[in-house]
Amino acid sequence: MLSAEIIAIGSELLTARFKDTNSLYLTEQLNEIGIPVVMKGIVGDDENYLEDAVRQSLARTPVLITIGGLGPTEDDVTRKVVARVLQRQLVLNDEILARLQRRFKSRGIEMPANNARQALVLTGSDILENNNGTAPGLWIRSEKNHVILLPGPASELKPMFEATCVPRLRELSGTGALARCVFRTAGLPESLLDARIAPIYTKYKNPETTVLARPGQVEVRLTARGKNLEEAERLLKELADQIDQELDDFIFARSEQSMEEVVGMYLVMKNATISTAESCTGGLVAERLTDVPGSSRYFMSGVICYSNEAKMELAGIPPLLLEMQGAVSAEVARGLAEGVRARANTTLGVGVTGVAGPTGGSSEKPVGTVHIAVATSTKTEHRQFLFPGDRERIRWQASQAALDMVRRELMKM
Amino acid sequence: MLSAEIIAIGSELLTARFKDTNSLYLTEQLNEIGIPVVMKGIVGDDENYLEDAVRQSLARTPVLITIGGLGPTEDDVTRKVVARVLQRQLVLNDEILARLQRRFKSRGIEMPANNARQALVLTGSDILENNNGTAPGLWIRSEKNHVILLPGPASELKPMFEATCVPRLRELSGTGALARCVFRTAGLPESLLDARIAPIYTKYKNPETTVLARPGQVEVRLTARGKNLEEAERLLKELADQIDQELDDFIFARSEQSMEEVVGMYLVMKNATISTAESCTGGLVAERLTDVPGSSRYFMSGVICYSNEAKMELAGIPPLLLEMQGAVSAEVARGLAEGVRARANTTLGVGVTGVAGPTGGSSEKPVGTVHIAVATSTKTEHRQFLFPGDRERIRWQASQAALDMVRRELMKM
Repeated sequence: MLSAEIIAIGSELLTARFKDTNSLYLTEQLNEIGIPVVMKGIVGDDENYLEDAVRQSLARTPVLITIGGLGPTEDDVTRKVVARVLQRQLVLNDEILARLQRRFKSRGIEMPANNARQALVLTGSDILENNNGTAPGLWIRSEKNHVILLPGPASELKPMFEATCVPRLRELSGTGALARCVFRTAGLPESLLDARIAPIYTKYKNPETTVLARPGQVEVRLTARGKNLEEAERLLKELADQIDQELDDFIFARSEQSMEEVVGMYLVMKNATISTAESCTGGLVAERLTDVPGSSRYFMSGVICYSNEAKMELAGIPPLLLEMQGAVSAEVARGLAEGVRARANTTLGVGVTGVAGPTGGSSEKPVGTVHIAVATSTKTEHRQFLFPGDRERIRWQASQAALDMVRRELMKM
Repeated sequence: MLSAEIIAIGSELLTARFKDTNSLYLTEQLNEIGIPVVMKGIVGDDENYLEDAVRQSLARTPVLITIGGLGPTEDDVTRKVVARVLQRQLVLNDEILARLQRRFKSRGIEMPANNARQALVLTGSDILENNNGTAPGLWIRSEKNHVILLPGPASELKPMFEATCVPRLRELSGTGALARCVFRTAGLPESLLDARIAPIYTKYKNPETTVLARPGQVEVRLTARGKNLEEAERLLKELADQIDQELDDFIFARSEQSMEEVVGMYLVMKNATISTAESCTGGLVAERLTDVPGSSRYFMSGVICYSNEAKMELAGIPPLLLEMQGAVSAEVARGLAEGVRARANTTLGVGVTGVAGPTGGSSEKPVGTVHIAVATSTKTEHRQFLFPGDRERIRWQASQAALDMVRRELMKM
């Protein structure tokens, strides 16, 4: 049975601030393929310690994945050390060098001499193309080991691993078949959601069910194993159908789609347009909507009305209303949604106002109080929330709730 | 010179969801004492892998701290494995046993038989009292090593470490001390930055220099060691001053502050206000500015002008200009900055327009082309960029460049 070790390299990883998300990502991917991770190590940019760690890993575990240390600077040592342990030469690869030069040229920059170091490869290694950065990855097959060298930035590591390593590892592991699905939900806290579906999923050992709470979102993940894909998918479907029915419209996606992608899809489907007027979320709703490629088709404009003057000027909120009800109120949320919708001439308008904290709360309107409204040509829906957590979490949950209200409105159209 | 390794033990640590905060805490504590952490490992509840890891650590590093695996269940293997490696006996400690029994009794519970395992100690070890749980820690002094066994729950590990380990480690490390600093820069790619400072920092083994690239930001970290804090700080200063001078105003922070925090600080300091008009960044600049607590003091309003109509309406861009120059142009960026500034009546106005992709690029204006302008009452600065990467990275880098231009403008005020 195949097993793997992961070694993350870089002195910054040995500081108190480092969060090792890459290795968690790789662990998840490897587990999906059926390859357990038996040990992990973190080493600084130190050739001796790294050599020690690599040598010992190779002696006990068939697959070693290293993260980082492939950059152009003096202290990036991974290639050199792995070459030494495996007794291979480092040679300059003309193809990589040419690609690096093209990459810099296309950005109108002369390639710095030290970037040429990234074109060094171990003899006999397979090159893992990097479409998101300069350092290519390497896959070296030795007598007893597979050694995979990946770049440190997550934006480079993840697409590279999925495109070049996952298929090859899957073939190597050759263990049965997995079928999986995910339900992404919004609007139900984890405990309430679990109370609804636990009576269903606890009846099954296979598929395996995981409930994962993130701010503003709870995910239910099912993994079925079978002798072949057909069997795995049959087992999966039996449980998935029941959970789907139970959670119904709390489910906003049956894939890894984000809330903003789902909302975007509905907007395109319904040929609708949208505009936003935000106070406490400070542009986060608009930022998420426009994060989706092609969003210019439905997102027209947004305003961020932090000051009261901006609320009057940009969304036409009457000064008297602000004075009577306060900026954080149902009326102002409605006014923002209706005002921005009318001015931008869109199908939908979204208004958000609240207290993100840490200051500005009161006993009547504590930190976390948020009013959200969604306006159409015929009516305006409003909801009031009290979100837990710090400023960042409150803002995130508010943006999620606003987008979810938009989704529900679009579903009715 | 004393150095340390940390091994965290527990199969749950090898799952995709685990966040290793204990080892970050210990790293910070050890660094403060002047003991660098040279390697970290994570091992499951597996005697063989753990034995391998412990044996190898003891061979190369004087201090080993293990986290976890001291519980009462079968799979808690730390004591057993460390005893085997150090060739010591495990003996039942009457005092701990009595304390455990008292602890359970005070909670009105009969002590489960397997908890007695937590009273096992290696011969010749010092017991580290646990005031917040059942498993005591152990400190074992061998000929060449200090091995410290700590419990896994953070609520037990932290108070135990501070009360019993910190004073003893401080004494062991003698007068040694570490001093560190960080420079966060924007505007210079990693390779260009490194080409400028490598001639300086490669002359020094102490302080140690690390260069770390993130999207839109490159960090330089220096760590100096000395016999005492004074010496460490003196050594640090010598190199830090040169790097500071070389990188000059590319440095936006000399601490762990984010760009938006620095900009916020300057805005408060200069008693200035700001408004934003964004196209391709879709609200990200405003979102980052308002992510800072207290930002309502200087952030007045923002507009997100995705459609041409919104650019005319919300920032007063003349239709003829849009037609002649196109929405992605220096003139429109300037118009956005000046328009939003005038309407919001703020000290500064920011305008961003560009092609975030993946579509919408042309040979003249390829994906990644971004125009940014910052307007004040007297003039408007403009810069054109070509950012690499996908939509998300382009937007992030554009927001970073916009905030950096604001920072530079504020520094001049």
